[in-house]
Amino acid sequence: MIAIDWGTSSFRAYRLDAAGAIADKRAAPLGIMHVEGGRFAEALEAQVGDWLAAGEGPVVMSGMIGSRQGWKEAPYVECPAGSEQIGARMQQVAWGAGRVAWIAPGVSCRDAGGVPDVMRGEETQILGVLDTLPAAAWICLPGTHSKWVELRDGRIHGFTTHMTGEAFATLRAHTILGRMMTEAPNDPAWFEAGLKRSREPGGLLHHLFGVRARGLFGELPDPASASYLSGILIGHELQSVATTADTVYLLGARALEAAYRHALEHFGHRAVALDADAAVRGLWRLSPHLPEARK
Amino acid sequence: MIAIDWGTSSFRAYRLDAAGAIADKRAAPLGIMHVEGGRFAEALEAQVGDWLAAGEGPVVMSGMIGSRQGWKEAPYVECPAGSEQIGARMQQVAWGAGRVAWIAPGVSCRDAGGVPDVMRGEETQILGVLDTLPAAAWICLPGTHSKWVELRDGRIHGFTTHMTGEAFATLRAHTILGRMMTEAPNDPAWFEAGLKRSREPGGLLHHLFGVRARGLFGELPDPASASYLSGILIGHELQSVATTADTVYLLGARALEAAYRHALEHFGHRAVALDADAAVRGLWRLSPHLPEARK
Repeated sequence: MIAIDWGTSSFRAYRLDAAGAIADKRAAPLGIMHVEGGRFAEALEAQVGDWLAAGEGPVVMSGMIGSRQGWKEAPYVECPAGSEQIGARMQQVAWGAGRVAWIAPGVSCRDAGGVPDVMRGEETQILGVLDTLPAAAWICLPGTHSKWVELRDGRIHGFTTHMTGEAFATLRAHTILGRMMTEAPNDPAWFEAGLKRSREPGGLLHHLFGVRARGLFGELPDPASASYLSGILIGHELQSVATTADTVYLLGARALEAAYRHALEHFGHRAVALDADAAVRGLWRLSPHLPEARK
Repeated sequence: MIAIDWGTSSFRAYRLDAAGAIADKRAAPLGIMHVEGGRFAEALEAQVGDWLAAGEGPVVMSGMIGSRQGWKEAPYVECPAGSEQIGARMQQVAWGAGRVAWIAPGVSCRDAGGVPDVMRGEETQILGVLDTLPAAAWICLPGTHSKWVELRDGRIHGFTTHMTGEAFATLRAHTILGRMMTEAPNDPAWFEAGLKRSREPGGLLHHLFGVRARGLFGELPDPASASYLSGILIGHELQSVATTADTVYLLGARALEAAYRHALEHFGHRAVALDADAAVRGLWRLSPHLPEARK
């Protein structure tokens, strides 16, 4: 089987043996945004043509390749969604001399206010760790758009997305706060101060201005300010997630693992980090659900 | 008297008669950032040299001209601060043939968490409307950095700053949300939907992602998305301000007045807009407190 994690900015391919172990792998900076003219078949042939020529298959893909901007849109499956529901909605693409590949759909849900939420790619990572988790569990996937996922009965019951990483990046790059931020967030004590700050009254928009005011008053060193801001934002994210779970499982985003572990422990959770190669195992787990495999 | 509102990006000068009425006025895009090499005396002479030559005075200034990046730093006066406390801390600058001018200080306070907050310029606007307000009142000054000010005994008792306007601008210009925002915020119904959204669970960072998700699902038209985002942000600002005041006075930022009036009424307040020329009257009100006037 060929498992492909094809996102907005990167392409990762894995050749799996009959037991699902990784026999070979390749990566390229060939995200869907970088494939000219929508020539996805040609891009795929160029990356793994030799595996295909050797008769390897099926090809199973996940990520933004299934978005409206990708090869073929694989519409979102509504929660609750497990491997069966997701597998049943795989989309087929055909090309060349009778070759086919399968694309996993994303997952959607609605929050308490009835507003939709979406994931695409993360569902496959989650499928990859399902068999290592209790049937009811909370998973946090930190990142540009952090996701908090509630599992029930071994399926994705619901989730919320938080624009935490993108908010941090844009506040740092494009606002008055950025001038202070001479260093990346790397100061655990000031990160902790930011977590504490997020629990004080005043709201996030006021806490943001406080970063500047503390700087003006010489009460926040410039090199620590990005850590403090990161703590404020991640603290607000954690506070807004309605979970009383003792354990929260951290998935993906290895670079953010230490910060999220720190934040989770600050808020009284136990943090357990899961294997970052989850997407490959998720794709493997989907293969028995392919329509052709079910025949 | 010559009253000058000298901010980061603009310069406004008013010649006042003996009764405090505006006899003449001038404005220039000559904020303190645009004054080369800190030549503030030369800039002032160039703008109002004829008034000075005619013997007009004193010169009283407020705004960022009193910041560390301005002509002379006028350190913040701590709350509670009224015209007496602010007037007593005016800073003098001297230049040329014995000429002097006075710069109003900003005001600072500490919030419930002990974090400092600051204003510079707004204190003079507030002094300008004091005699039209009850001794105890709440004032909101919308803007890039919105301020909520509590008056007690006719003085600034405390205040909080919220990075609402700057957050809106940077989210619109520099994040994934911006792609949707083909129009300026001008849709009251979607602004209202954003206000309502701000009261739902999930937190601001989740509500931000919901803007995108509603767009993806065809449940939020692109031209309405900036209005919806604006409602979410202003709604979060209002919710985080701890006031049960029936009436909230709106000061300055004429362009944001309609949106804030809408939001205040949505949250059960009565909105009363005050005269936007408040800074001039505040400077006039400070003149009897100048150290030389007190002699």
